[in-house]
Formats: sequence, C-alpha cells, structure tokens
Amino acid sequence: MIKTPYLLFLGDAPDQLAAKVARGIRDWRPEFAIGQFRMEGCKADLGLPDMTLEEAREAGAETMVIGVANRGGVISPEWRHVLAEALLKGFDLASGLHNLLADEPELVEIARAEGRELHDVRVPEVDYPIANGRKRSGKRCLAVGTDCSVGKMYTALAMDAVMQERGLKASFRATGQTGILITGDGVPLDAVVADFMAGAVEWLTPDNDPDHWDLIEGQGSLFHASYSGVTLALVHGGQPDALILCHEPTREHMRGLPDYALPSLEELRDLSLLLAARVNPEVQVIGISINTQHMSEDEAAAYLAEVEAEMGLPTVDPFRNGADRLVDALIALG
Amino acid sequence: MIKTPYLLFLGDAPDQLAAKVARGIRDWRPEFAIGQFRMEGCKADLGLPDMTLEEAREAGAETMVIGVANRGGVISPEWRHVLAEALLKGFDLASGLHNLLADEPELVEIARAEGRELHDVRVPEVDYPIANGRKRSGKRCLAVGTDCSVGKMYTALAMDAVMQERGLKASFRATGQTGILITGDGVPLDAVVADFMAGAVEWLTPDNDPDHWDLIEGQGSLFHASYSGVTLALVHGGQPDALILCHEPTREHMRGLPDYALPSLEELRDLSLLLAARVNPEVQVIGISINTQHMSEDEAAAYLAEVEAEMGLPTVDPFRNGADRLVDALIALG
Repeated sequence: MIKTPYLLFLGDAPDQLAAKVARGIRDWRPEFAIGQFRMEGCKADLGLPDMTLEEAREAGAETMVIGVANRGGVISPEWRHVLAEALLKGFDLASGLHNLLADEPELVEIARAEGRELHDVRVPEVDYPIANGRKRSGKRCLAVGTDCSVGKMYTALAMDAVMQERGLKASFRATGQTGILITGDGVPLDAVVADFMAGAVEWLTPDNDPDHWDLIEGQGSLFHASYSGVTLALVHGGQPDALILCHEPTREHMRGLPDYALPSLEELRDLSLLLAARVNPEVQVIGISINTQHMSEDEAAAYLAEVEAEMGLPTVDPFRNGADRLVDALIALG
Repeated sequence: MIKTPYLLFLGDAPDQLAAKVARGIRDWRPEFAIGQFRMEGCKADLGLPDMTLEEAREAGAETMVIGVANRGGVISPEWRHVLAEALLKGFDLASGLHNLLADEPELVEIARAEGRELHDVRVPEVDYPIANGRKRSGKRCLAVGTDCSVGKMYTALAMDAVMQERGLKASFRATGQTGILITGDGVPLDAVVADFMAGAVEWLTPDNDPDHWDLIEGQGSLFHASYSGVTLALVHGGQPDALILCHEPTREHMRGLPDYALPSLEELRDLSLLLAARVNPEVQVIGISINTQHMSEDEAAAYLAEVEAEMGLPTVDPFRNGADRLVDALIALG
C-alpha cells in the first residue's frame, strides 16, 4: 500500500505522452496529486503546481511517484540524484519502471537509513494464496476485451468515478502497474507466479457488503495467445457477477501478434460467459465499452448505435460519453 | 538440464508412496536409474541395487536425485549430511522439495567450492520469452483433464514409451517437477511468472521435424478455479494438433474445491477444442484416457466401453491397457 498523497515526478519527459502514468493519477485521483516535479528540459506539463521537494512535503505529499516512462529503461544519474534527495527529504518512492528501485544500491541504502519505503509496483509485495473458489459476498464487475490495451482500465476507472459521484459503494481494483500507482494499491497480476494468479485476484476482491461493487481492472484477453492465461485467472478468481465487453474497432490484428485477427464481440461474449459461469452461474454481460479514439465523432456515433442494435446491450465510449449507462446497467442487476 | 544418469535418494522414506518421484524415474527412464541410496529406517524399496555414494559414482551416476517427499517440508540434518557428502563425492543434486537446496547455505557453499550444480526443479532456471503465437513446425499433443491429478502426466509418458518402442519421433515435454526430474529437463510451469507462461510452453516445444510429436505434460484443468490460467497458457502456448481428454470417474468434486463438481467429458472436449482452435484451427480430440485405479477390472472395462460408445473416440486406461490405441489415433492424424 503506497502512502498518499503524491508528488508526481515528471523528470525530463520528452513529451506529454511519456507522462501517461502521472496523467492517469491526475485524472482519476486528483486528490492524490499535490503537485508536479519537473527537471530541466521536461516537455510534459500536467497543469499542476510545480513544486520543489520541500514545498511538496510541506503541502503534505508522502510519496514521490515516478509518473513518466524513462528512456532506455534505465534510471539516469540525473534522476537518481533527485530520487535520492527525495528520500532524504522524507518521501517514499513508487515506480513502475523495469529498472527497479530495489536494484539501485544507493537508493536502497538511503531508504534503509532514513526508514523510507521503495515501491516497485511491477513486483508483488504479498505472498498470495492459492485460490479456493469459494463464493464471496459483495458484487464484482470485470472488463474483458477482444484484445489487450483496448480500454479495460479506463472503463473500470470511469465507472468507479460515476459510482463515487452517485454515492454508491464501489472500489476500483487495480491489477496492473498504472492502476496500482493511480490508486496506491492492487495486484501486479502479470508478475505473479502462475499458481497464485487466481488466488491473488480473490485476495484483491474479498468479502464485502452485499451492495458493494468491485470494479476489477482487466488484463490481456482470453483470445490473446500470449496472455490468455492471465485473463482466465482474472475471470475465475474474480467470480464476476457482471462483465463489460471492451473493443477497439480499428485494430487490424491482435496487439503484438500480426497473424491473429481480433474475435468478434459475439465470440468475446460467449466465451467469457461460458468461462465465468464456472465460478458464478449468475454472471451476465451488462454493457459494451468501445474505444473510438481513432474514429471521427460521426463515425463513432454510428458505430456505437450499430453495435448497440446488434448486441442488444448499452454501448458507449466512456471517454466520449461517460460511463453512466454502464453504471445504470450494473445497478439494474440488483 | 540435469545431468544423467541418477542415483535415487530415498532417504528415510516412511513408506513406498513417499518415494513416488523415484518410482516415476525407475518406471519411465530406467536407463537413468543406476541405483538407490537408502538411509537407516527407509521403508521404500525400488528394487534397484543399493549403492554407496562411491559405488554409484563408479557406476557412472552424475546426479543424486531426491526422489522422496520429506516430512514437514524441511531438509533434516541427517539428509543434509548425506547431501553434503554427495556433493563432495562429485554428484550434482536435483530436488523438487519446497525446502530449496539453494536455501541451504552449507550445500550452496560446498557446491560452489566443488563446482557442482544444485537443481531446484520448482524454480525456473531460464528467462522465458513472451509468447509470439507463431505457428511452429512439427506436431504437438496435449493431455487435458476434467480435473487436476487425473493422469495427464502418466498418459503422456505412456504414449512416449510406445512411440519410442515403435521407433517414432516423439519427445515427452515435462511441465511439472516430477516430469522434469524423470526426464532431466522441462519447464516448472506453475512457478513461472504469469506473463511468461505461454512463452515458456513455446520455448519447451520449438520447431521440429514435420513428423515429430511433442507429448506435452498437462497441468491443472480449464475447469479448475485455482489453476485454469496455467492450463490455458498450455493450450495457447502448446498449439496442440491433438488433444487427449483425461478423467477420473470416481472423483466426487474438483480436487481441493469441495463446492465444484467435475465437468463432463463433453464439456471438456468442447471447451478445449474451442480454446485450442484459436492457435491451431486443425486441432482434434483423438482419444480419451481414463484413470480407473479405483474401479474393479470389470467395472473399468464396462466404463471404458460405455465412454467409447458415447464419445466415439478410442478410450483406454493406459495403466491397465497401455497407450497403443492412443498412439494409433495420433499417427492416424498424419
């Protein structure tokens, strides 16, 4: 569990896109985003107050989050200098970089001496149990996709935001590094040892109030030859009551697999229901989330209407239309 | 890759059952089993020559394999003494115990000083790639089960033995610790990090001669809430041309999951084909392997005949009947 609120480290980000993680935190947990820390040459700007380490500490920031993808996958000497300073000033550090904080001897030593924590969210911090398959109280919604990176996390976060606004009981449950950094907690499922994947998802979504919804971040796709096992662990460990189908209609093949076409939404619906029913016979598909970022507004509207008619389910792009209709469908389940 | 042949360490095994791994090696790779090493009080006997460490080295043994489950999951001081002696006498060590050899400082130090290898087959020794889903040359057969521990490894090993006898090109591909100790090589799939599961299976079953069959050891079950993700990684990473359905008819619920009934063979067939077709549209179910150990001979014969008539596929218990009919069906695929 990462201490909040955060100072967002943007480093020397070469462009806005490189600061994707920081933007996610600002958009979805603005109350965690006290300020931004930018180094010379930084081309990203989140519109947050620029703060020195001291100012951010005074404003209450507990953790400096590396909210930027670095060049070449390594922590540069310039970065390391700032990170060391932050530890000395009383910050914990959190990072989703391949280059682990734990592999930087200088940072490890300072953190130990100062009693600070280093969070590498790519690495599990918990010994997860083997899944036991027992029915848990509370309700769970899982976003599943025709492919990887089609908007599953965005969909769950957008639904969570609507439910919080409406005063409904809901928790976004992060299963990937960006989600974990946004919320400060979660399971880095792709880094969990195979035998414990489903157990980690059970651990993440424990017994809860009967009217509480876990909104579980999806990973991979049941149809993706590289990651399907991770997705099935989410389906079986998550015991979803509700599924949201996610799709990106302009994609020409599965991400990273040029020989594989995307499945249809019907195939995704049927396979997901078949597999999820094994752990929850009541499971239903309640809506469809389409990522229309590569379509014009007219194209997007026409496509959404067409899918809604064909599939008979509320169909939205939560980025363009918000997630209200998905939440309505969820609540209608009872 | 573990060096063969082996001296099989039976320790102070309390009964025959505790020496299951050693028995697997003796049964399936008798040419690897030079002799057995038994300590005082050992109640297991494989019928192999009892040898001192010196005698086994002289007979050519390269690795001492811990072929016995230990009490309480720890390496006792008595065991440790023998293991240390074995290293000093020139043996590598191989173990599938929870208590890792690598966690025994004394053994680690001797191994380093003597230039010997410690193989903990529960722990991956390779950095596996992410699966790429590309079609590979050669053919692959995967055993899938209605549940865990229904005879998938036995089935693949029995088919491998028949194919070797007939001079056909075949390789048993181990995916669990017992299989790895038996053959000296393989992937401990349940210990692989989630993102790399399918890639590990691709790595294990690379391009091969067009008429070569990989006989892939199955793991878990697509229907088992705890381990289904591991099984799906096997299906998608293995790209099977042929599936064998495995079942144990007297089991009352899924192993370790009292609330879950076993699926039918029809359900197993349909789901396995559906998922495997994603990576290999030509996949076929070619036979059924039934574990009838808890049935009388008459009951078993009647049950096998009934399943064969219902499913329209060669149905055998390879332990009672041998695996010839399964191999015939495999070869008939072309």
